[in-house]
Amino acid sequence: MQLPAKHPYLNLVFPAPPSERPYVGLNMVMSVDGKITVGGQLKAGSLGSPFDRYTMSVLRHHFGAVICGGETIRRHPYYLGVSPELIPFRKARGMASQPLTVIVTNSGNLPYPAPLFEGAERPIILTSQASFQRVTQSLGPVAEVHAVGEQRVEVREALAFLREHYRISRLLLEGGPRLNYQFFKERAVDEVFLTIAPRLVGSVSDLTMVMGEDVLENLPRLELISHFQRDNELFLRYQVPRN
Amino acid sequence: MQLPAKHPYLNLVFPAPPSERPYVGLNMVMSVDGKITVGGQLKAGSLGSPFDRYTMSVLRHHFGAVICGGETIRRHPYYLGVSPELIPFRKARGMASQPLTVIVTNSGNLPYPAPLFEGAERPIILTSQASFQRVTQSLGPVAEVHAVGEQRVEVREALAFLREHYRISRLLLEGGPRLNYQFFKERAVDEVFLTIAPRLVGSVSDLTMVMGEDVLENLPRLELISHFQRDNELFLRYQVPRN
Repeated sequence: MQLPAKHPYLNLVFPAPPSERPYVGLNMVMSVDGKITVGGQLKAGSLGSPFDRYTMSVLRHHFGAVICGGETIRRHPYYLGVSPELIPFRKARGMASQPLTVIVTNSGNLPYPAPLFEGAERPIILTSQASFQRVTQSLGPVAEVHAVGEQRVEVREALAFLREHYRISRLLLEGGPRLNYQFFKERAVDEVFLTIAPRLVGSVSDLTMVMGEDVLENLPRLELISHFQRDNELFLRYQVPRN
Repeated sequence: MQLPAKHPYLNLVFPAPPSERPYVGLNMVMSVDGKITVGGQLKAGSLGSPFDRYTMSVLRHHFGAVICGGETIRRHPYYLGVSPELIPFRKARGMASQPLTVIVTNSGNLPYPAPLFEGAERPIILTSQASFQRVTQSLGPVAEVHAVGEQRVEVREALAFLREHYRISRLLLEGGPRLNYQFFKERAVDEVFLTIAPRLVGSVSDLTMVMGEDVLENLPRLELISHFQRDNELFLRYQVPRN
């Protein structure tokens, strides 16, 4: 693996966060035909290369916390932190060794034990008031459980809470497609990092990056900030204009 | 619109076709989240820019014929030819003024009259033996109808027929997702031209580029031949290795 110092994303510059929530980046890998799963599976290496997985770590190292939906975690319950060699780069920037882990779940149904829970800090679980008691019973002993929204997690409320309570100024979203949709619907994504893996999946049942009931109201028009190629993979960075 | 001579795809070089079928290129435009329709619609300009539509024409100008599925034509029954200013470039290469139009349909249910039928040559309709009589009744007066396959159109048989009967040595596939899948399943796509339009569609019901019942058996691994950016759009060219 190359040294972190040579990675094109090591020294990214980010705009200041909005006042009411963290600055939000989304990072995903998809096939040439737009799929993010293979046969319904979300396995490390089924789409992206080792370099892509390293890129995921380099991206995380810029963020105060990484957020995922429960279904993504159930499919792939791995720790959302950075590779050890990136820790000094975080420390040099005055950041904690690892980003905080944030999981959105209404069911509280998360695999335990799992690498997800092996970080130095307990994961933050965001759930609804309706599910709070149940989720606290199941995950309270191993995580910080908070209610943000009445019947379901409300993205804006969740973001305001993360900003205020945990002082998170940059948040990295890593799926799944339903949570991504909620974020875009609330216009709460500021940029998108996308890896195009040189594969074709082909099946109608595999997932895509953003999946909601309706077309996004504003059909967001992104701005391509940068792109680079490594072997047959492309790494794209888009800005989502705020308007 | 820029002059054709300046388009990066004007002077593409293609490998020789295999002996038994035409060389096949696929051209599609998709959103950043992998969708090729918007609210189920396939409308010119809903995803791609005017430059992307011009690129579609530049690509077509390299091909002896353009092939589409019936559902794509029903959604968007436009003529599959090239812009007039590209005709001299075709003629200079010893090609006919326009590529032939090839439609794959079992139902024979195509909109008529429609711009699709306005080329100098009648469209070629490929259907199954089971549907041949019915399709000939409806489209025989305005198209060349052929049966390639018993109960459904067989891609390999269709390609061999186009090569042998119409002497087509390069064929451009333009969707839809089911036909694309059949082509990939038969390992009958040699390269992929893909435009990434800087939009987010977001809906679960919109189509993706390749949609079949199963994951493609070999999970094809593509090679990125070239890419270029124009404004916020990316134009990718992949080779599909033959193995």
